[in-house]
Amino acid sequence: MGYRVIAGPFDLGAWSAAHLERVEQALSQWVTTDMPTGVDHGAPAALVAAMRYAVLDGGKRLRPLLVMAAFEATQAQPSEDAPTAEAALRAACAVELIHAYSLVHDDMPCMDNDVLRRGKPTVHVQFGEASALLAGDALQALAFELLTPESDVISERSQARLCRQLARAAGSAGMAGGQAIDLASVGHALSEHQLREMHRLKTGALLQASVMMGATCGQPTPAALDALAVYGAAVGLAFQVVDDILDVTADSATLGKTAGKDADQDKPTYVSILGLERSAAYAQELLAQALGALRSSGLSQTQALAGLAKMVVNRSS
Amino acid sequence: MGYRVIAGPFDLGAWSAAHLERVEQALSQWVTTDMPTGVDHGAPAALVAAMRYAVLDGGKRLRPLLVMAAFEATQAQPSEDAPTAEAALRAACAVELIHAYSLVHDDMPCMDNDVLRRGKPTVHVQFGEASALLAGDALQALAFELLTPESDVISERSQARLCRQLARAAGSAGMAGGQAIDLASVGHALSEHQLREMHRLKTGALLQASVMMGATCGQPTPAALDALAVYGAAVGLAFQVVDDILDVTADSATLGKTAGKDADQDKPTYVSILGLERSAAYAQELLAQALGALRSSGLSQTQALAGLAKMVVNRSS
Repeated sequence: MGYRVIAGPFDLGAWSAAHLERVEQALSQWVTTDMPTGVDHGAPAALVAAMRYAVLDGGKRLRPLLVMAAFEATQAQPSEDAPTAEAALRAACAVELIHAYSLVHDDMPCMDNDVLRRGKPTVHVQFGEASALLAGDALQALAFELLTPESDVISERSQARLCRQLARAAGSAGMAGGQAIDLASVGHALSEHQLREMHRLKTGALLQASVMMGATCGQPTPAALDALAVYGAAVGLAFQVVDDILDVTADSATLGKTAGKDADQDKPTYVSILGLERSAAYAQELLAQALGALRSSGLSQTQALAGLAKMVVNRSS
Repeated sequence: MGYRVIAGPFDLGAWSAAHLERVEQALSQWVTTDMPTGVDHGAPAALVAAMRYAVLDGGKRLRPLLVMAAFEATQAQPSEDAPTAEAALRAACAVELIHAYSLVHDDMPCMDNDVLRRGKPTVHVQFGEASALLAGDALQALAFELLTPESDVISERSQARLCRQLARAAGSAGMAGGQAIDLASVGHALSEHQLREMHRLKTGALLQASVMMGATCGQPTPAALDALAVYGAAVGLAFQVVDDILDVTADSATLGKTAGKDADQDKPTYVSILGLERSAAYAQELLAQALGALRSSGLSQTQALAGLAKMVVNRSS
């Protein structure tokens, strides 16, 4: 469970690759019939197969990387093989499980009715709708199971806080709430304020929670926590603004999903409200906010957080 | 948040009525746009309406009553208005939210496709499938949010343990796993062992967790915990055996759901495997096990637990 503290000039690519490898390994280890509590409870193999299909080998893993970056920025003393490193890894995977379950349910016929994700058939296409529904439900529960091991790799105090942060970010005042607003907004005009509110819940809450949960595994000062909350909110919003821009400017092959879908569905987006140019300027403004928050945080090891913010804004897919 | 310690000869009806009133009030208070963390995060009203519809004014509330009964049996000193009483009430409501979400998803067209529950249109009939899916998802998250308040009404140690118990019981090695086995079993012959395993996960895990979570809010001895685990497993299994019996012997009006449905769907049941008479004997045997466990628990205030076990086995609906 150790991880390497990277020395020398900061290389986001190398940092991400090293952490992604650990996250992929951990997800594969923990999403099994042999549950993370270390006891084989006999989870049925067919359900676990659908859960693994939904989680493994896919996605940019932005949320886990934000968890790890915020953890490293707030560690009192970087150390290898510390129990706290497993705490952050569990938090990183828990957040990704919530994200993965939301995609499974989102793709279902009664929601977005998507048949492809990351070039593969979606879970309900591959396993049937009922299995997709149950796999998503089980992934949400597993996220909280990952955060609450019986061993002391996470203090009970941190377990409670991590569960609190994740539950809020996932629920009716977070991701699920944002999806409900999204659902109700198709074909309706939204003000920029309403659009921002929807995205603050739908994607922003979980992205911000990723940052805050990473910090929960570290030892941040109150001032650092405040700064990270600003950073997380700005990155969360920037993520969505850039998503909206790419939906217009990128082609489907680059995106790995259907481009132009928002406009086709008459969904309100930043581009439809602000236009392309002002949307791009807004994304840069949010990046500046995020980087400013890091500078004022009093934290020294913020290179990964800064790099991830730049990556979110300047990505092409 | 106080509750009354009932003196004199034990009256399960009065005990249940008093506790049900508190549970109903608490559910109504906590399933709102003003989330249990005490801050209005702006959960969308339409989503919360579907969540309230799914949760309020319905059901026997067996799981919350088991939580409260196990809490009272394991309290060191019964007291009114103790923070621990709110801890148990939160645990009781959290378990009920998990149960409620499972019913919402279970009723959906891709699962059981039920249009009526407790005499009312099911959530997807009333609010649409997408809203039902999201309401269920949000109810699961809310369960964990209820267990992790920022205030000290639940110690962080207990918050961590309650989340662990609930996550395991709800997930792939618990309720969701049992539903996956159930789904795969339609039209297949199951052995009694396989049937028991399915029900241990599908309904038993959450019923047993209700008992253990109530005890987590108390101060049980290790011996009492062991005995309560046996009690919870026996009551959980008995619940399902009796369900299978009633599906054959009761009419739809009494049940409040469609009778004879299991046989119609060619689902394996205790009655189809053991026959009616041996199923009834098995239910009585499980009741004896549950009551025996209470006698060996070293606990003195077990009247409510004993009464609930008898009610589960001797109910007519």
